[in-house]
Amino acid sequence: MTTREKLTAAMSDLLWERGYAATSPRDILERAGVGQGSMYHHFSGKHELAVETLRETVPGVTERSLLLAGEGSPMERIRAYLTLPRPGTRGCRIGRMTQDPQVVQDAEMIAIVAGGFDLIIERWQGALSAAIEAGELPVGIDPADLAHTLVAVIQGGYVLARAHDDQASMDAAIRGALALLEAAGAPRPEI
Amino acid sequence: MTTREKLTAAMSDLLWERGYAATSPRDILERAGVGQGSMYHHFSGKHELAVETLRETVPGVTERSLLLAGEGSPMERIRAYLTLPRPGTRGCRIGRMTQDPQVVQDAEMIAIVAGGFDLIIERWQGALSAAIEAGELPVGIDPADLAHTLVAVIQGGYVLARAHDDQASMDAAIRGALALLEAAGAPRPEI
Repeated sequence: MTTREKLTAAMSDLLWERGYAATSPRDILERAGVGQGSMYHHFSGKHELAVETLRETVPGVTERSLLLAGEGSPMERIRAYLTLPRPGTRGCRIGRMTQDPQVVQDAEMIAIVAGGFDLIIERWQGALSAAIEAGELPVGIDPADLAHTLVAVIQGGYVLARAHDDQASMDAAIRGALALLEAAGAPRPEI
Repeated sequence: MTTREKLTAAMSDLLWERGYAATSPRDILERAGVGQGSMYHHFSGKHELAVETLRETVPGVTERSLLLAGEGSPMERIRAYLTLPRPGTRGCRIGRMTQDPQVVQDAEMIAIVAGGFDLIIERWQGALSAAIEAGELPVGIDPADLAHTLVAVIQGGYVLARAHDDQASMDAAIRGALALLEAAGAPRPEI
């Protein structure tokens, strides 16, 4: 690992474990095992390091949503993505950031987080529009609204799993969403 | 306000604005406008004050879920509760706590937060069971699973609204959930 990589890896861990406000430049140097000079050689300070760390971390978090544009019928893709393993009690690396008061107030940092969500919502919307077109979901449903709903189910699943320290809360939230999608998509009489 | 009330009000605000880790005993005294002696007269320290503050705050946060057991048909109650005003960009006072690393690791604090969610999930489950019994939702859906899903939609709605700094994300998540509930409950052929 280069010094720069050591610094972003340390910041990524500390953002996750302690949050932005509670992480000091000293914590970062200790975790990264580098000297103060190296840090200020690469970054102007804690803020720039956090921005760079988010910029490098967010694409990895959103990558799995490519499944929504992958193989299979739209509902097969939706099911495949919803049922991916999600260790709920650990929480979501980007969702967590929205609850960090200093991150939310920082235009640069929150824009990177929002961009990650936008990408996932866009992929959801594509899969849901395709499901409606294929007759797997009813035409009356707005795919943009439902994309927000399903991203919210996953994010809220993390909140519940962390409250209960139990993966079962995440699993129940996902099962309920799938059951509702299937019930909504079940054939109905022509009227 | 009594000194004790000033202290819990200050702690409630600071938990909300900065989180538990980033709040020092000194911050609490300054915000409450009381001396160090008063604080240690009422509480053994920051931890006991935070526990008491959560114990007093959580019931107020869960109170609105009584609508789920209120008047109207089950689906009317569900719609009334889902469409309550929820300033999404502010976030949820109890959901936020699950993203605070020190709160999650503290058995006493997280138990109070989890208890709040349990109460809301229980009320959801009651309304959803009644909706299934009344034929407003299909019998194949597990009301306990769906209760988790719908609490998650609201919690995830806060996450998205904070990411985008826009109430529209919360509103879209709620509209999508309602549309899906209605589509799932629409009459279908006997098979």
